[in-house]
Amino acid sequence: MKLAVTVGDLNGIGIEIALKAHDQIKKLCHPLYIIDQSMLQQASQRLRIDIPEDFETYPCGESFTLQPGKATKESGRYSYDSFLTGIALSRQSIVRGIVTLPINKEAWNKAGIAYKGHTDMLADVFSQDAIMMIGCEHLFVALFTHHIPLKKVPGKIEAKALQAFMQTLYQEIKEEKIGVLGLNPHAGDNGVIGDEEKEISKAIHAANEALMQEVFVGPLVPDTAFTSSMREKIRYFVCMYHDQGLIATKALYFEEGINVSLGLPIIRTSVDHGTAYDKAYHDKNPSTLSYINAVKEAVRLAIKRKKFRI
Amino acid sequence: MKLAVTVGDLNGIGIEIALKAHDQIKKLCHPLYIIDQSMLQQASQRLRIDIPEDFETYPCGESFTLQPGKATKESGRYSYDSFLTGIALSRQSIVRGIVTLPINKEAWNKAGIAYKGHTDMLADVFSQDAIMMIGCEHLFVALFTHHIPLKKVPGKIEAKALQAFMQTLYQEIKEEKIGVLGLNPHAGDNGVIGDEEKEISKAIHAANEALMQEVFVGPLVPDTAFTSSMREKIRYFVCMYHDQGLIATKALYFEEGINVSLGLPIIRTSVDHGTAYDKAYHDKNPSTLSYINAVKEAVRLAIKRKKFRI
Repeated sequence: MKLAVTVGDLNGIGIEIALKAHDQIKKLCHPLYIIDQSMLQQASQRLRIDIPEDFETYPCGESFTLQPGKATKESGRYSYDSFLTGIALSRQSIVRGIVTLPINKEAWNKAGIAYKGHTDMLADVFSQDAIMMIGCEHLFVALFTHHIPLKKVPGKIEAKALQAFMQTLYQEIKEEKIGVLGLNPHAGDNGVIGDEEKEISKAIHAANEALMQEVFVGPLVPDTAFTSSMREKIRYFVCMYHDQGLIATKALYFEEGINVSLGLPIIRTSVDHGTAYDKAYHDKNPSTLSYINAVKEAVRLAIKRKKFRI
Repeated sequence: MKLAVTVGDLNGIGIEIALKAHDQIKKLCHPLYIIDQSMLQQASQRLRIDIPEDFETYPCGESFTLQPGKATKESGRYSYDSFLTGIALSRQSIVRGIVTLPINKEAWNKAGIAYKGHTDMLADVFSQDAIMMIGCEHLFVALFTHHIPLKKVPGKIEAKALQAFMQTLYQEIKEEKIGVLGLNPHAGDNGVIGDEEKEISKAIHAANEALMQEVFVGPLVPDTAFTSSMREKIRYFVCMYHDQGLIATKALYFEEGINVSLGLPIIRTSVDHGTAYDKAYHDKNPSTLSYINAVKEAVRLAIKRKKFRI
């Protein structure tokens, strides 16, 4: 299965991770790295890591001189071009999906790119918001709301929108059991501590009816949803807000975590860390765990989609 | 050091835990169990556990016939009397603090006791709210707000009240470093995703000024506050709302967790589990970990208070 790997900001740790993990990655899929040969050679020399013979590349942008650890206009533009090319290859079904290495927001800003990041750009390209799912194979959380102030969350808990979110999620991940968290302490304790759980219950009921099976369970009491005994039974959860899901995944599996965009025409998974400029080109051996997990999940999702066009 | 152990609902698992853990508990403190001899004998016979010779008791209530696993008026009243007696002994400095085993809300209700639980009753007895701190020695979270609907939380984030909370907390736990979480995703990302962090920053600054040392650090990004590398540096955190703290402590240390009431004239720690009626008197070997940790923490807090009156 061919997957595009977009190399992210070349002044950061992404390319080191891609080079070092290649032997493992090629056992999982056929990676196509979206980087020009000249840039690859420059990075390889600076890192003193040989380019593996079977490191297949696809050109994407304008070469520039690396400035390790710096957010530059050129590195921003290049990472954007790599991502844009990955999207194009995926839309044309030349690859089955994209795995993204980290870009830097400041560098994008310097390059005049208005997006806040990959997810923001995907929403614009496809004119729809992706479902953001974060975690690792032991625990995934899909965020019903994410980058909004906490005070705006309760107003967003509305049965119809939540039901649609849940059904899209199910279409993508096809899991038998998905937990759905309540919003309030003790999931509202039968309405004593907040009542948004009524909307959540409605959404669960309607989604299960539509799917003709009891996929979604809840509203779960948020603070006991992620205990070890719960995680043995359920691995996928719908969370009502950013920190409800991410406090758990990051407390438990920080290094392993990945970021997945669901509900889009293309498959996209990503590492869940940044460019780590302070570690770039310093022989610090950045962890490749998140990247390898991102590739594994892209493969799993592609198989689930069962669109064997490539 | 003498500590009162209030036995909780005798139809639940509390007394089994107290009997089974006694040999360990007596190495930590001098426990005084608030239970009448007749009730202790009845429980011991039903459980087929001998009463240890040095199991010192203090009478408190009206004997009744045990009904294992049932929320009854009598069990509710008795657990209330045990707790009330523990409070009285602590106020009179006959004991240095109280460790509470679980009561049952429904049983209290049947007995005509209007309180929702221990904490609610303490607030009434002492005419002040306690600080609720939950966790274990690896990670403690003090909850600035707790049993209120999530939508009411943002309105409560106010610098003066938070500062007072933080200073009271410090007086009790005397920790060198205490993390303070932001409210919003990414701690507001410099005001882009909510601005309650301004109030939190003000409170941190003012509390540190008043204490003349940099005890409080933050506002921390909530979803990375509890990663393993953070927990190596900081073990005590102030959380803005119930699930912000409890999702982390319960995901990581569910069985070990305890509940501590701070800022009251007396010391009180508690197990962080319920009566588990389904397991009571069934030879299910309930975990004693939370109870033992509650005793350890009561001892630590008593030492910190340095009121060596007993």
